[in-house]
Amino acid sequence: MNSPSNLTGSALLTDLYQLTMLQGYHDAGMEEIAVFEFFVRKLRPGRGFLMAAGLEQSLQFLEGLHFSSEELAWLANTGRFSNGFLASLETLRFTGDVHAMPEGTVFFPNEPILRVTAPIAQAQLVETRLINLLHFQTLIASKAARIVLMAPDKLLVDFGLRRAHGAEAGLLAARVSYIAGFTGTATVQAGMQFGIPLFGTMAHSFVQAHDDETLAFEHFAHAQSDNVVLLIDTYDTEAAARKVVALAPRLEREGIRVKGVRIDSGNLADHARQVRQILDMGGLRHVTIFASGDLDEYLLRDMMGSGAPVDGFGIGTRMDTSSDMPYLDCAYKLQEYAGKPRRKRSEGKQTWPGRKQVYRHCDADGRIESDVVALEVDTQPGEPLIMPMMRGGKRLATAATLADIRSHAAANLALLPEPLRRLQEPYAYQVEISSGLYELAAQVDRASSNH
Amino acid sequence: MNSPSNLTGSALLTDLYQLTMLQGYHDAGMEEIAVFEFFVRKLRPGRGFLMAAGLEQSLQFLEGLHFSSEELAWLANTGRFSNGFLASLETLRFTGDVHAMPEGTVFFPNEPILRVTAPIAQAQLVETRLINLLHFQTLIASKAARIVLMAPDKLLVDFGLRRAHGAEAGLLAARVSYIAGFTGTATVQAGMQFGIPLFGTMAHSFVQAHDDETLAFEHFAHAQSDNVVLLIDTYDTEAAARKVVALAPRLEREGIRVKGVRIDSGNLADHARQVRQILDMGGLRHVTIFASGDLDEYLLRDMMGSGAPVDGFGIGTRMDTSSDMPYLDCAYKLQEYAGKPRRKRSEGKQTWPGRKQVYRHCDADGRIESDVVALEVDTQPGEPLIMPMMRGGKRLATAATLADIRSHAAANLALLPEPLRRLQEPYAYQVEISSGLYELAAQVDRASSNH
Repeated sequence: MNSPSNLTGSALLTDLYQLTMLQGYHDAGMEEIAVFEFFVRKLRPGRGFLMAAGLEQSLQFLEGLHFSSEELAWLANTGRFSNGFLASLETLRFTGDVHAMPEGTVFFPNEPILRVTAPIAQAQLVETRLINLLHFQTLIASKAARIVLMAPDKLLVDFGLRRAHGAEAGLLAARVSYIAGFTGTATVQAGMQFGIPLFGTMAHSFVQAHDDETLAFEHFAHAQSDNVVLLIDTYDTEAAARKVVALAPRLEREGIRVKGVRIDSGNLADHARQVRQILDMGGLRHVTIFASGDLDEYLLRDMMGSGAPVDGFGIGTRMDTSSDMPYLDCAYKLQEYAGKPRRKRSEGKQTWPGRKQVYRHCDADGRIESDVVALEVDTQPGEPLIMPMMRGGKRLATAATLADIRSHAAANLALLPEPLRRLQEPYAYQVEISSGLYELAAQVDRASSNH
Repeated sequence: MNSPSNLTGSALLTDLYQLTMLQGYHDAGMEEIAVFEFFVRKLRPGRGFLMAAGLEQSLQFLEGLHFSSEELAWLANTGRFSNGFLASLETLRFTGDVHAMPEGTVFFPNEPILRVTAPIAQAQLVETRLINLLHFQTLIASKAARIVLMAPDKLLVDFGLRRAHGAEAGLLAARVSYIAGFTGTATVQAGMQFGIPLFGTMAHSFVQAHDDETLAFEHFAHAQSDNVVLLIDTYDTEAAARKVVALAPRLEREGIRVKGVRIDSGNLADHARQVRQILDMGGLRHVTIFASGDLDEYLLRDMMGSGAPVDGFGIGTRMDTSSDMPYLDCAYKLQEYAGKPRRKRSEGKQTWPGRKQVYRHCDADGRIESDVVALEVDTQPGEPLIMPMMRGGKRLATAATLADIRSHAAANLALLPEPLRRLQEPYAYQVEISSGLYELAAQVDRASSNH
């Protein structure tokens, strides 16, 4: 039993049924082009919009798709698959096309954000990992965007790795919260991997390891003289703030400036007010207050609304797990095979057939107003949101930089009308299904009911 | 920007503040032994117990702990750290001790499940990743155990990879749901990695890719003749069940037996009853019914209570995200440094100082009744739950097999009294804090208030 490393690009990050279906397609000689689209079915009440994310990792996964010899040997050993089929897996690579909304685009239910057009075996096999990547990153980008909207001018730092669901979740949450507008992350590996700015303060253990709180502050200030942010709630928050006031002049004489203090427990707004007063009366107006501890967009709205003197926030668990909505009702569905549109009619899970485009309309103020989902061939007015990203298994452009994606996200958030920004009861954005699409769905239904 | 692979064992899977604190310990010459313990502070209402998990990956992480030369070069480049400190990281390995509850042990709030005893730099650095591994696996093991208790004799298969939070979450959810009593998983990589039995059926896309539903069933049956489980809700569930009845004799003549059908939408219990009737009247009493789609322990309880004729369940999103409680209020806290007990007193987050043991008591029927948390040196009656796992950075025994852990979990679940098994309003299990621990906490408070 090894640790689950080296596995995030494995072709076996898939459900068994993908492989058994591939064996079925192989045996039946079904090799035609399939079109799958990824979309969110619906949003839970209280959520007004989504932010697309995860495209970059999806393209990387498709570019690298292959079965290693070790994986093939293991599959052969299961006795579930024929030799002919296993031989076909040996040479399997992704040779298809991908169309998608750029990461950072605001979107809504029923709108595809990614389309895969490829021989059916390839398009089917990758379903599980593509959903896994797109679902999680879209989930967290959408959550982070809500947080950013509640505190647009504050320092916002992702603190979530420890309670994210595994290492990949923590790294990707750092990535997409930065895309959505966070200032940075505490996760060091995300700094190295993605170039995201890193922020950090100190932990209670550092204070506890010292017999004296002031000595702990002093040791920390000497070790991190450019970034002295002191955690003041280990024992008594206001008493610690007074210790900071007493210590600061001594540090100043050594050329070290206290930059900020962090509060991590109790009523954060109340403590912030008291600490602000202590710092100000002690001549430390320049020292900022940073708050953390079970924060999310609802608590931020309340704190900002009450005018709490907080300059920055560390947001962890509730963002990295999207705790009020830890999953999206999303799917990756077959919309066309061998040139024919296809439609699933399962109760409550019907799909719209064919290759689709989303067209966006803005109002006179430039705010987004309504979208139309139509067949790709049925060109409509408005701005098309879905663009070609990969052709024949090759990217059409170099990967977007994180800075570009972040700008695109900010531009998208700026276009949200006020009613969509609300945390409670946002209005339902209008997503119109084109008449051509209704017609095609009815046609497909009639054709299949003839069997 | 690379894909986030090869990173699950990285020493940089940590928060920036761990490294800045390490620089502080280094500069201050603080190298004494620290004792940290991981525990859950409290459970949300409705949850009665927890199941410990994640130890194996934690031990693997500690065994492999080191900074790669690439990581050290990157850290140096940030300009945040001194050369002397960076040199100390080059040789840093985990040389400490680990005590823990075996995976699969049932436990409760305020009970440490893992203790690290090591030079403070080592014990501090690993906080983030240890919490990340223990939190997630304990979260999902505890959720899966509730599901197992609701349907003890059913086939239970993890379907969650696609909506798990990243690849590692999906793999580890497969692992811990199997530990908790699931029959297996659909995640192929978890089969290869952990040896977990794999299960799978077919997807709607397979049916949709065919012009005719019966032909899809036939193709699938030929390709997977040992494991013919047919998905029957793509268009009309009962109509598809009748198609299975018509097809089965034809397949039988070829020596292929339909093993089961799967229903994935609509009212699962109602459809199961109708489908059961169609199958039985069609002479297919041996064909089992497998249900999936947004299932969790609450829905399982209701379906089992209503006597729905379902033989197995595919459980995905709601388990792999622990959707009703997507995180635990857990912590890894300094309890001792340089031989002295330590205590955090932050509001609502006070800790119990010192190295602790948990003693368990059972009633006359052998059901667990109460636990006592005491200092390790203060031996108590009852069964001690925490055992030495690693000494001087080396394991004390070979890794427990998944089969052994699974047996231990089953034995633990069997010891749960009825009131703890309830999904709603379980009784609060008695966890007593020993008088010695109260006394020590008061002593530590008095000592630190003298500063």
